[in-house]
Amino acid sequence: MSTRIAASLRRTALSARSSPCVRTLRPAVQVRWITSATSEPHQPDAEGTVKGAAAPAKAIEFTSKKYPEIKRDSRFAELTKEHVTYFHGLLGSESAVLDGVSKDASEDIEPFNSDWMRKFRGHAKLVLKPSSTEEVSKILKYCNENMLAVVPQGGNTGLVGGSVPVFDEIVISMQKMNKIRSFDDVSGILVADAGVILEVADNYLAERNHIFPLDLGAKGSCHIGGNVATNAGGLRLLRYGSLHGNVLGIEAVLPDGRIMNDLLTLRKNNTGYDLKQLFIGGEGTIGIITAISILCPQRSPAVNVAYFGLESFDHAQRAFRAAKTQLSEILSAFEMMDGRTQKLLKNVSGRKMPLEGEHPFYCLIETSGSNTDHDSEKLSAFLEHVMETGIVSDGVLSENQTQFAELWSCREGITEILGHWGGVYKYDLSLPIADLYALVDDTRERLTKAGVIGDDDSHPVVDVVGYGHMGDANLHLNIPVRKYDKEVEKIIEPWVYEWVQKKNGSISAEHGLGVTKKPYVGYSRDDGMIGMMKQIKNLYDPNGIMNPYKYI
Amino acid sequence: MSTRIAASLRRTALSARSSPCVRTLRPAVQVRWITSATSEPHQPDAEGTVKGAAAPAKAIEFTSKKYPEIKRDSRFAELTKEHVTYFHGLLGSESAVLDGVSKDASEDIEPFNSDWMRKFRGHAKLVLKPSSTEEVSKILKYCNENMLAVVPQGGNTGLVGGSVPVFDEIVISMQKMNKIRSFDDVSGILVADAGVILEVADNYLAERNHIFPLDLGAKGSCHIGGNVATNAGGLRLLRYGSLHGNVLGIEAVLPDGRIMNDLLTLRKNNTGYDLKQLFIGGEGTIGIITAISILCPQRSPAVNVAYFGLESFDHAQRAFRAAKTQLSEILSAFEMMDGRTQKLLKNVSGRKMPLEGEHPFYCLIETSGSNTDHDSEKLSAFLEHVMETGIVSDGVLSENQTQFAELWSCREGITEILGHWGGVYKYDLSLPIADLYALVDDTRERLTKAGVIGDDDSHPVVDVVGYGHMGDANLHLNIPVRKYDKEVEKIIEPWVYEWVQKKNGSISAEHGLGVTKKPYVGYSRDDGMIGMMKQIKNLYDPNGIMNPYKYI
Repeated sequence: MSTRIAASLRRTALSARSSPCVRTLRPAVQVRWITSATSEPHQPDAEGTVKGAAAPAKAIEFTSKKYPEIKRDSRFAELTKEHVTYFHGLLGSESAVLDGVSKDASEDIEPFNSDWMRKFRGHAKLVLKPSSTEEVSKILKYCNENMLAVVPQGGNTGLVGGSVPVFDEIVISMQKMNKIRSFDDVSGILVADAGVILEVADNYLAERNHIFPLDLGAKGSCHIGGNVATNAGGLRLLRYGSLHGNVLGIEAVLPDGRIMNDLLTLRKNNTGYDLKQLFIGGEGTIGIITAISILCPQRSPAVNVAYFGLESFDHAQRAFRAAKTQLSEILSAFEMMDGRTQKLLKNVSGRKMPLEGEHPFYCLIETSGSNTDHDSEKLSAFLEHVMETGIVSDGVLSENQTQFAELWSCREGITEILGHWGGVYKYDLSLPIADLYALVDDTRERLTKAGVIGDDDSHPVVDVVGYGHMGDANLHLNIPVRKYDKEVEKIIEPWVYEWVQKKNGSISAEHGLGVTKKPYVGYSRDDGMIGMMKQIKNLYDPNGIMNPYKYI
Repeated sequence: MSTRIAASLRRTALSARSSPCVRTLRPAVQVRWITSATSEPHQPDAEGTVKGAAAPAKAIEFTSKKYPEIKRDSRFAELTKEHVTYFHGLLGSESAVLDGVSKDASEDIEPFNSDWMRKFRGHAKLVLKPSSTEEVSKILKYCNENMLAVVPQGGNTGLVGGSVPVFDEIVISMQKMNKIRSFDDVSGILVADAGVILEVADNYLAERNHIFPLDLGAKGSCHIGGNVATNAGGLRLLRYGSLHGNVLGIEAVLPDGRIMNDLLTLRKNNTGYDLKQLFIGGEGTIGIITAISILCPQRSPAVNVAYFGLESFDHAQRAFRAAKTQLSEILSAFEMMDGRTQKLLKNVSGRKMPLEGEHPFYCLIETSGSNTDHDSEKLSAFLEHVMETGIVSDGVLSENQTQFAELWSCREGITEILGHWGGVYKYDLSLPIADLYALVDDTRERLTKAGVIGDDDSHPVVDVVGYGHMGDANLHLNIPVRKYDKEVEKIIEPWVYEWVQKKNGSISAEHGLGVTKKPYVGYSRDDGMIGMMKQIKNLYDPNGIMNPYKYI
């Protein structure tokens, strides 16, 4: 994420102004970091993880058992020898992998059948790994004509069960379509296959002084095609905007095998309906994205990060307003974490935290700009303001790349440690900023009254915590549990969605619908909208073979 | 556009560095401006103009005569007394204006029948002016059931004939739906009726320290609903991105009267297909936008503008690269004008230009940031670089609000003066930046060889000029003519579109398709894409009543 950190930033911050308040900022350099607890590129973290990093998949409960109300669609054919023969002929046996045929562990298809959270598990017998758009086209045409249901799969890092089969759908893995096709360093436009791993794309761009306009915890394993298919939000949205604005072109294959050739590399193009937008966030239900073109900003030579403790959520809101005004064009992230997440992070990982003492709330601010001195001055002025006015209780600034990563890990490491007890109920919600944290308090109160929260094994719920992308009014409400429990679920749902609906929020800000949110989409969309969406689904996928049992 | 200009900028620029090259920048303050030639808010300028500002509409040739290949669709009903009675009952006679009924000039419907460029003129007999979404719904439902074709009309400032009728389509003017519904100054999200004038919205936001993320010459009369329906690009796209990213919600009425209720005010919302995107740039062919919600950035306290003369288009490209790197996050516009546009501007308006002498190319750079001193320093460093390395030959910086406006008028005033001789052939193209200006040279050469360019009335073509949004690789190729001439048109078209197709460009970057570009969409989209678009049109508007004879 960062390229060069202002080593002199803290010194600048303290020497430029003489306010005693600013001096209460403790230098990060004094903190003894326990680095083993921090995330490496391919470890599970913030919003996803490496496929197969979880315990043996076979221990995971089948989705079909967990959701008995979902019935296999009898219109779909069951896989026959003839089907398999066709796919072997098309792709070869190493790219059309049949379950149980090989004893080679590398050809085990179970990792494609389950997710890293250990929440979903399908019954797929066949995994296809096409290497070209033409192969994808032939696969889908054949499946459509033979009524074989499919699940497109990228890095399989999703959080709503969208990328794993429910029954015997054929998995179409995009992992072999992993080439960067072109990059133009004047316009900043990258064209790449859908199966390119986000971090690979970002590293490629880093060498060319640009960045991918999206960053998220799962970057070490998620695919850029999956990012676009799920309209991933992540950590850079505040600065660079959504994929609906940044994706300039998409090449996709429709269920009938047609190739949508819309892979233009133009910043402006007003020649007809912008159909590619339907595939951004379409979750693989109307076609498979095979390549994208995307506008990538120049990489900022100056990147800084600060981590604060605050008295209340109201203080966090005031800090956000001050940051918007004073850091303005260099503000690249504003993340909020409650005190409970930071305490759990400390206790589970055993790491030393950046700030001494405990605070009810924490914020992480990142700035990215073209001039180190200017950014330092803006940060100093901002820090002086938030310290002098008591908006912030304590804080620390990164002084080097290691500290930069360590501060970020206080935010990005949360997801991993919340899984420590066995499971997590995760809600990804858009709400008016003022109401963002009230939901966490209300949920905690509700579960406490129900007597399900406690410190020992007789209580299923460990805690109720909240964190998220404050700059985007996006809350991650997380409920770590010792086991998934239908009774606990009933206490939370649909109550939590009703709460969000009352505030005109969204029940899925950035994670999508998948299996989990499908029954609840009515809390964010009215019947008219859902009817219009079903028209689109029916238009492109009249046989319903694309990623069935999910979305709308 | 600007709020506060750095009065000390030029002083800073010159005193901070001692390079003699920088000193060749001439202070704007020495320039005697002829202010009468500059644009006022409600005068015609850059990309459009005030409806009705043109000469009497009745002198304009009918579109149906100009394009004899377009035939009236016989499926559509002709307007009857019964229809008129229905609309009078629904809206009252003052909001359902029948041609020729009133002698009150204010009720003349001719301005709704023609465009400001005097290129298009329809035969509409009825103009409807709904005041609410429910009225729009009732109108469309009735029209759909009675096979009455309609044309949605905003500020009627378009450039491709999209907002005026071709035959007897009923005009639905959105001018009475002009209320701002809400604004949240923490999130920056504005919700407003489609008929709000862009400048009214921007002034409203200015008072609240925000800006509309779109700016264009026609801002004094264009409607924000029309901006969204045509996916307007304009002057702020380089910094704030496209409407596909900034529009967060749309309320629209479908041809069958259904109201699409997607007016959410959330920065993130992944709950199903993003259907509103189809209406962004849909040019009123699948429904009428009645309201939008849009993300508005904070207004920058420091705004500066510089105007340069350059030796060649290659120098302009080098200036753009340098600006991207050195001005980075504060760069808010990079416009290119060729020397011919500036010479015509000088000759026609009689104004004094900002730079002495003549240069083959000119660039206008705007910066917007939160800190005046920082921006001045960045600009100084940039200026020193481009002057010392000979990228820029001469330049001038604004010192105050008046000069700021004057420099911008050298770019925004172009469209108006190009109309001086009677007509303009306008092409709005996306091309790879390196090829951007070669098309202008090639076009001039082609028309010169054909013997149609000259200084006297025996030659139809006055000149061939190019300008545009260099930061977006968007060229406006303009050919001012003494009269519209079919022979000249045949020399230019389809040759110009073939040229663009060879470079994988777009035949309409930001102006849309309308009547003008409809026959040429195949140069930018393949048959598969056009087929998919027709599916969408047919899905939403099976009777084809919405804005017929246009788009795809």
